[in-house]
Amino acid sequence: MRTIFESMEHAAAIGIGGHVRPDGDCVGSCLALCYYLKKKYPNKKVDVYLEYVQDEFLFLPNSSLVKQTIDGSEKPVYDLFFALDSGDLDRLGFSEPLFHNAGRTVNIDHHITNQGFADINFIKPEASSTCEVLMDLLERDLLDTDLATCLYLGMIHDTGVFKHSNTTRHTMELAAVLISYDVPFSKIIDETFYQKTYLQNQILGRCLLESFMVLEGKCVVSYVKKETMDFYGAGSKDLDGVVDQLRVTKGVEVAILIHETGPLVHKVSMRSNHDVDVSAVAKQYGGGGHVKAAGCTVYGTIYDVINNITVHIEEQLKKLDTLRS
Amino acid sequence: MRTIFESMEHAAAIGIGGHVRPDGDCVGSCLALCYYLKKKYPNKKVDVYLEYVQDEFLFLPNSSLVKQTIDGSEKPVYDLFFALDSGDLDRLGFSEPLFHNAGRTVNIDHHITNQGFADINFIKPEASSTCEVLMDLLERDLLDTDLATCLYLGMIHDTGVFKHSNTTRHTMELAAVLISYDVPFSKIIDETFYQKTYLQNQILGRCLLESFMVLEGKCVVSYVKKETMDFYGAGSKDLDGVVDQLRVTKGVEVAILIHETGPLVHKVSMRSNHDVDVSAVAKQYGGGGHVKAAGCTVYGTIYDVINNITVHIEEQLKKLDTLRS
Repeated sequence: MRTIFESMEHAAAIGIGGHVRPDGDCVGSCLALCYYLKKKYPNKKVDVYLEYVQDEFLFLPNSSLVKQTIDGSEKPVYDLFFALDSGDLDRLGFSEPLFHNAGRTVNIDHHITNQGFADINFIKPEASSTCEVLMDLLERDLLDTDLATCLYLGMIHDTGVFKHSNTTRHTMELAAVLISYDVPFSKIIDETFYQKTYLQNQILGRCLLESFMVLEGKCVVSYVKKETMDFYGAGSKDLDGVVDQLRVTKGVEVAILIHETGPLVHKVSMRSNHDVDVSAVAKQYGGGGHVKAAGCTVYGTIYDVINNITVHIEEQLKKLDTLRS
Repeated sequence: MRTIFESMEHAAAIGIGGHVRPDGDCVGSCLALCYYLKKKYPNKKVDVYLEYVQDEFLFLPNSSLVKQTIDGSEKPVYDLFFALDSGDLDRLGFSEPLFHNAGRTVNIDHHITNQGFADINFIKPEASSTCEVLMDLLERDLLDTDLATCLYLGMIHDTGVFKHSNTTRHTMELAAVLISYDVPFSKIIDETFYQKTYLQNQILGRCLLESFMVLEGKCVVSYVKKETMDFYGAGSKDLDGVVDQLRVTKGVEVAILIHETGPLVHKVSMRSNHDVDVSAVAKQYGGGGHVKAAGCTVYGTIYDVINNITVHIEEQLKKLDTLRS
């Protein structure tokens, strides 16, 4: 990194781009790097490009300066352009042309699939988050509350507040350093991670009440009709977290949330607590995901969907029983 | 601590007691110390006394050996007795006589109110948890997965998984060391912290659906009737976490959950997100608690309770507005 920062001394204009549909780690890392560069080089131009910044992240420094489009008809040319948290170039979305136009490019990421598409690449698949990779690159003596807040936010969003298996001793040690800079961590966790609108809590309530257990208590299923979502004026995003609340039901191996999005069209989200591979089920319906979190679209009545999906889950459970016995 | 461990060399029988209604930090610290002592001194007798061990903590080492009563008519006499996580002697409950009978006593705690009632006292009010105090006292080279698991469990329960303001840089650093011993932290967080029974999720769903906003969206209120709880065969414990889910509603300063426990009798739980002092409201009804979490019992119809409590909340909000302006 020292080399980048040395070569940066000569860059007058620096651009930073994150991935489409930016999440906490993407926004956190982009704004952390922006803040750091502005602090270290007050006279340079530093621009951040993100599709949007969620309301709950607007308290972060420089969030109001984020560019959601490319100004003017001529694309700006940056001496240096950073792609952050983006597994491949496509993920940059509307800022990809700026990457191609730039004098020199840097790629900072933690996705194992990242092939290293820039002039300089810092890819650490063992890191919990891009914020973790970034923190190891930055000069520690420039840390302050604002910078630490951006980095901390990214780490908690990609680790589920130090819960997911990507959390390591090193992650926790870095977070320890960060909170020592008076990061308002209780507030950040509550307001960016757990906060729900009244409406989202209503929908969560509906989904919990509609839930039922199948496969001898090993699978919990819930569904929400289009008319319910329309009644609340809610979108898919308002269902975030619902399947995770179902997943933590005692005794459950798999949680399924079925969302009717149109006539005989259902979006199915699945979560697995242990060894059931829900992506194998999703793939049968043209969907995808990971072993523990996957999704697909299934056509038919709600009864068809429940029957078809749970049959596949039952097969997976039986396979596991055979393996375990 | 070295002195205790030196004096312990001569103790043949060691007792450990936690507080009544033991929580994660209490169970975690008692079983951590028990495990440590058994590992360090395999020939000594080490007994742990706890009122009960919750099902979700039964995976901890030695949990099945915990004594929930005192054996026989003659009280055993321990050479050394540890009181853990107990702010005062009364908190020990049924094991208090064992403390009085012991040759020497040790008090390890993090409650600021702890006056130091034992022969040897280790009280660190700045620590997040008794597990944190304990970890700083133990010899690190005896750490292994089982010991680390007990200590980690206590820390996450008292810090709300590193969220509450008692979490410090030191807490995070200790947790970093612990997870490096292959503590199954994802599983522990899910299964001891977030897990709910199907029934508890049903009740949560009911309470979310019944909730409504008052005081211009600054206060969310919900209630659950006795007949609903009876229908589900649920007890007060099944309402754990409900008021916290209400509290994270966007825009809300105060969350209130009203639980009808008998004819015209209501238990009121209140949580505050910022500066409203809910304990001031609880005290007016003979209840108590802290600034951000308090409770009381209020008599009258549900309408009386809602009206009376929210009037007090409104007063608190007005006071804050005056202070802030």
